[in-house]
This record gives sequence, structure tokens and C-alpha cells, in this order.
Amino acid sequence: MKRIAIDIDEVMADTAISHLELFNLEHGDNVTLEELQGTTLVNIRPERREEIESYYESEQFFRQLSVIPDSQEVIRELQKHYEIFIATAAMEVPASFRAKYEWLKEHFSFISDNHIVFCGDKSIIHADYLIDDNVKQLNRFQGTGILYSAAHNIFETGYTRVNNWLEVQELLLGERAEVSR
Amino acid sequence: MKRIAIDIDEVMADTAISHLELFNLEHGDNVTLEELQGTTLVNIRPERREEIESYYESEQFFRQLSVIPDSQEVIRELQKHYEIFIATAAMEVPASFRAKYEWLKEHFSFISDNHIVFCGDKSIIHADYLIDDNVKQLNRFQGTGILYSAAHNIFETGYTRVNNWLEVQELLLGERAEVSR
Repeated sequence: MKRIAIDIDEVMADTAISHLELFNLEHGDNVTLEELQGTTLVNIRPERREEIESYYESEQFFRQLSVIPDSQEVIRELQKHYEIFIATAAMEVPASFRAKYEWLKEHFSFISDNHIVFCGDKSIIHADYLIDDNVKQLNRFQGTGILYSAAHNIFETGYTRVNNWLEVQELLLGERAEVSR
Repeated sequence: MKRIAIDIDEVMADTAISHLELFNLEHGDNVTLEELQGTTLVNIRPERREEIESYYESEQFFRQLSVIPDSQEVIRELQKHYEIFIATAAMEVPASFRAKYEWLKEHFSFISDNHIVFCGDKSIIHADYLIDDNVKQLNRFQGTGILYSAAHNIFETGYTRVNNWLEVQELLLGERAEVSR
């Protein structure tokens, strides 16, 4: 059975949109999602770098993130045909460990603890596929990388790109369907 | 550069001895390290399973563990010749995340966050070597497993075994010295 590793932030969890909404609300700002395309909030409001980054120091921030549409259903379906591991770069934000774990237990209770990985550099991940929004991680990964579209990566080329979970389903279950014919 | 993944409990941290000492102290017992050879504390005192396992639910337990002799010096030396990743099965004990991270930062500050992995099943680890006391993990690992001796594994055979960190040094730096001749 082939193995798929899946990132959390921007792939399973709506991290950037939640971040933007909280920032706008708490700082009386009105940066739009359109402005974020191909860039980051820090690039748009460099003078507020400290406030912007402070959200990532907050355990609560990671606990309340919304689930990306269709991710639960598609991952549950993928699990019938692949070994599914969750691989999140949690080491960048030690405050997030517990919150990320509890978030997974709440929203993806069908993933066993044994298949959850908190790491930094994802070259350590031994899997056939990695679905991630971060091209640096995809570049270091030894298997086949799949770029999950996020505002910050829309101008990246050279990767198999998926724009939503239905496209993941088509790519990874469609491919399997062909193989098993 | 080849890559070595290293387990924490019973390899870098003196988990079982610390566990035994705390149990004896807090329960007025006197189980010896000799009695633990080839077995576990729960097997010796099955009627106290709950108290014995409760230590692993305590964040403080993991934070105060002693470092296994020579591990700091040898890992620092290995780091000159190999990529070193720390891979601990922290998912079994979510209470341990923060404590294990802080323990590493205190005692192994020369290991970068990027090279720390909290996982469950170590078949997800992509490395050339895994140094671990747990034969189940070594069996699932795809690279070369190295069994670090611990009381519970003394009767296991069929693995390259190291009894202390000086033997790790000899095995992995001796081998390298030969290769580079």
C-alpha cells in the first residue's frame, strides 16, 4: 500500500484565512484575500511584523482553525487505498504542539496517533507522496510532491498542483482506479 | 552525507531508571534494576499498573530525566559526519510534547528544531540508521536498525546491538574512518 503524507496548515486547516481575519478584526485593518495572492501579510504590512507573527505564538490560534472543505471526506476515502500520515512542521512553533494534536483529534479522529508526525525539515518523511503548500518542503522531500494551492504559492511552477480536495481525490484515487483496471 | 535518526527514551534519556527510582521512592518499594532485566516494571508489579503508567501522563516526568552518559559528546561528534535527526515516539504521550522539546533544548541545544521529530510509527522516518531501544520500531524502519541496550530488550537477538554511546561512536565513526581511508 502506498503512503501519503499530508501537511496541516493551508492544506487541512485554513490557517492563512483565519490569520487574516483575526488580524483585520483585532487591528481594525481590511487587508483582503486578493491582496494576499502571491505574497504574505508581513510583506503587505511590514511595519506590523511583530503583531502579525504573534498569532503563531498563541496555542489558541491553532486550536480554533477551520477545516478546509472536503478534506475530511477525501482523506477518509484515501485511507481505504493508501497509508495516510499527517506531517506538520510543528517544530517551528512549539506553542502549537498540544493545540495541533487536539485539533487533529477533534476533526480527524480517524487518523491514529501512530500516523501523526510533528517535524521540521520534511526530508525526514518516508512516504510516496507529500501534499504540502510549501515548496521548500516539497523540494527536500524524496518522494512525489503535490503542491496544495495557497495564496502565497500561486506563482510557483514546476509542481503537480491541486487547488482543492476534490482535485486531490481525482489525482490520487483516479490514478489508483486506472492502475487497478 | 548519511543520516542517523536517534530515539530519546532509553537512548538519550535515562527513562527507565528514573521511572524505577520515582516508583520505589513514592510507593515505598524496592524493585531493583537487576529485576528489570528482560522485563518491565508492570510485569513485576502487575497489581500497580495504574500507578506505574501514571508517570508517563506527567509532563514533569519527561522534563527531569537524566541524560545517558556520553550521549551528548558522541552525538556532537557524529554531527560532524552525519545528518542527525532526533525521532521520538512522543505521540504515545501527548502530555510529553512540550517537556520533551524543552529537555532537548536544554541538553542537546546543538540539535536544530528542524531536525526534531515527534512521531508514532517510525516507518515514517527516512534515514540510513535508526538507533532505538524498541525492536518493534527497528522492525518497521526501512534503513539499518541499531538496537540500543535497555533492560527490557536484553534478550532480543538479530540486531546490531550497542551497549553504550562509546560503542555507537566505535560503530558509526569507526566505520566512517574505514570508508574514508
